Amino acid sequence: MMKIDVLSLFPEMFEGVLHSSIMKKAQANGAVTFGVTDFRDYSTSKHRKVDDYPYGGGAGMVLKPEPLFAAVEAISEGLEKPPRVILMCPQGETFTQKKAEELSSEEHVVFICGHYEGYDERIRQYLVTDELSIGDFVLTGGEIAAMAVIDSVVRLLPNVLGNADSPVLDSFSTGLLEHPQYTRPSNFNGMEVPDVLLSGNHAEIDKWREQQSLLRTFERRKDLLKDAPLTEHQRKFLHQLKRENK
Amino acid sequence: MMKIDVLSLFPEMFEGVLHSSIMKKAQANGAVTFGVTDFRDYSTSKHRKVDDYPYGGGAGMVLKPEPLFAAVEAISEGLEKPPRVILMCPQGETFTQKKAEELSSEEHVVFICGHYEGYDERIRQYLVTDELSIGDFVLTGGEIAAMAVIDSVVRLLPNVLGNADSPVLDSFSTGLLEHPQYTRPSNFNGMEVPDVLLSGNHAEIDKWREQQSLLRTFERRKDLLKDAPLTEHQRKFLHQLKRENK
Repeated sequence: MMKIDVLSLFPEMFEGVLHSSIMKKAQANGAVTFGVTDFRDYSTSKHRKVDDYPYGGGAGMVLKPEPLFAAVEAISEGLEKPPRVILMCPQGETFTQKKAEELSSEEHVVFICGHYEGYDERIRQYLVTDELSIGDFVLTGGEIAAMAVIDSVVRLLPNVLGNADSPVLDSFSTGLLEHPQYTRPSNFNGMEVPDVLLSGNHAEIDKWREQQSLLRTFERRKDLLKDAPLTEHQRKFLHQLKRENK
Repeated sequence: MMKIDVLSLFPEMFEGVLHSSIMKKAQANGAVTFGVTDFRDYSTSKHRKVDDYPYGGGAGMVLKPEPLFAAVEAISEGLEKPPRVILMCPQGETFTQKKAEELSSEEHVVFICGHYEGYDERIRQYLVTDELSIGDFVLTGGEIAAMAVIDSVVRLLPNVLGNADSPVLDSFSTGLLEHPQYTRPSNFNGMEVPDVLLSGNHAEIDKWREQQSLLRTFERRKDLLKDAPLTEHQRKFLHQLKRENK
């Protein structure tokens, strides 16, 4: 069973996310346990301080090293293998599905979530094993970013996703974006489902879906095409698309 | 005041995030109001169904158009200007800080969060104004992705971030990654703060920070350097870095 610990000054942010839907199911099935710790509890100062002014001056506050080192030490006590310690920050490596797969084989992962403060550099250098960012946008803290990483890792664990949750949206598994999907009604206020999907001709449906998937990837994410494992057939269609778009 | 509506089958996931920290403060200050709607309430079927099998066959379920169209219609009733309707999905445009800035000037934004189901294509074509993705990794649903977008937009609204929350981590505002930060103690278990930061020499401190910021960006995110507005001085240091790394 995987153990995931979160260190945050806003543990209540995790309530809803870790106790709903797939995360709830993953815990009930014994695939993962979660621990959320307010690292203010590890402050040694009188006023439970966890941050201080930056050396050298400047705006903003910086998270002190002591509470985070102490919290990780307490969490790791008695473990044979030290945990993977992940710092969520804008300077981190961009999180991808490949990283999610890598993390899903770990036994114990700790997420450190700062909240508008900076991190004392010694935390990066001596405490964490990975720095991750979910994208080039600014968040108030690492909490929502950690939730994104946790969700994408936990759903890969054994016994978490059943057939009922079968991932229609797993765009990154084929290397292409998903083709359009339609369900009933076939005519909704004049908006109709393409005839081919109602035809019952499965060879035609498969062909349409393959082409739509390529078309969508071509229109929206050309960058994915260079790494996607394409068949001869797909390559031909793509070539045609490129010619038409010249 | 901005209005943000979320349509989700798991409204309880938003409890913690929308009522803590900066989101809580933003509501208290009158910068934003949040509405979270379970769009199952807009199902017209007997068993409150919101999804159905895909036309043409295949695994997984697809979200039906009717409940989402009806929910957006109900939310928009009486408004002069139709809201911006954002679909969170892996096929969407990659969310960036620029998009956060753009959205922060809207009056009313609606987020549609699917949850492992696909979306009926008519939702994309006729209901939504934007499709957004937060990165190339697979999430169980759009909820956590919507939280990330909401957080990065709301913190840009007037009267939300005070001086106390001054964003040390705003890596994307200068176009470079932030330099290392240190705070007390100057020696923590033998791990020391660089002498220059304790020197009191502000010209030297500024120079060190500028160089460290460039160095970190060079080491971790070379892609940011081509768009960063660099001074002649910075360009020179970068040139030197490149020579040393050959």
